[in-house]
Amino acid sequence: MINQATSDRLVYAAMRLFSEKGYGSTSVADILREAGANSGSLYHAFPTKQDLLLEVLRRYRDGIWPMLLKPAWQGVADPIERIFALLASYRAMLTDNGCVYGCPIGSLALELHEPDPAVRELLSVNFRGWVAAIEVCLEAAREELPRDADIRRLAQFVLTVMEGGVMQSRTHRTPEAFDSGVAVLRDHFERLREAARGERT
Amino acid sequence: MINQATSDRLVYAAMRLFSEKGYGSTSVADILREAGANSGSLYHAFPTKQDLLLEVLRRYRDGIWPMLLKPAWQGVADPIERIFALLASYRAMLTDNGCVYGCPIGSLALELHEPDPAVRELLSVNFRGWVAAIEVCLEAAREELPRDADIRRLAQFVLTVMEGGVMQSRTHRTPEAFDSGVAVLRDHFERLREAARGERT
Repeated sequence: MINQATSDRLVYAAMRLFSEKGYGSTSVADILREAGANSGSLYHAFPTKQDLLLEVLRRYRDGIWPMLLKPAWQGVADPIERIFALLASYRAMLTDNGCVYGCPIGSLALELHEPDPAVRELLSVNFRGWVAAIEVCLEAAREELPRDADIRRLAQFVLTVMEGGVMQSRTHRTPEAFDSGVAVLRDHFERLREAARGERT
Repeated sequence: MINQATSDRLVYAAMRLFSEKGYGSTSVADILREAGANSGSLYHAFPTKQDLLLEVLRRYRDGIWPMLLKPAWQGVADPIERIFALLASYRAMLTDNGCVYGCPIGSLALELHEPDPAVRELLSVNFRGWVAAIEVCLEAAREELPRDADIRRLAQFVLTVMEGGVMQSRTHRTPEAFDSGVAVLRDHFERLREAARGERT
């Protein structure tokens, strides 16, 4: 048997290390050291490193509200501004570590070229959850968007801009590419709002 | 001594394998088998796997015109359409392999969390070369864009949209996210052109 506290310590250690070093470069010994746990408790709860990865991805999936959206949206009521507040939280993560680490899901998605179907499905579910959160914002702002705006497509586009910007900023080790992407996205939303005002007057 | 043909075979084998399996998952033995070369010739030309990676990244950098832009732009004269033709060539790469492999530079950029500075610099140079090619298109289309359009920022945005779309399409194993991104980008360019026409009449 392994208690919940030990299991949590292992999962959060893996979460941290996969995000900072990558999945392939993280060894089971690294995880045990980081968690201060012994191999018996690890193998009992998570027989393989992939079992830990699956649990990490489930925690990200289930934690999107408390870990990501709630802190980003604190005090931000306007639905479009919530989108930019979420992007700002990714910028803060980037600059907190000198643009070395970015989105943990995006990194895993490109590191694992042919992941096991269960892993790929959980990566996909994480992306879908993120896009769904943006869709909620866009639905709330529907009156500010052109009548024929494709809400789902726009929501997916926000994730595209986030991930593409994080990738370049990590590579160049400066937030400039991320900021540029956000600025063009903001310009696009301004143009959509202007078009919507034109339709409604 | 190792002749140029053998050296090329090794580099192209590494290029293919890094792109398909990732850098970490490709062993020196894999490269030798793929290239049909012996370890003596490999170690003479490329003492470490990272030396091969550096050479692969130099080939991508130097090959952007013959390998990527020239085939994508064949028969496409309009500068804005050239941007979409380049994006279409990435879509074709994606769908050719069931959305398993995407942009080799983007994959390496996120797989290698803390790359050696020489590697990171060459990844960065590859991104900058790509963005510079888009800038050339946008400069040629300057008359069709608003006077205050930030050409460099827009060029970087095109790379952001490509990489963010490839990442999601690989994860979902369908080109839909990539297509969505391209559709929103096209809508953005339409709006810019319309604004430019408004300024000039």
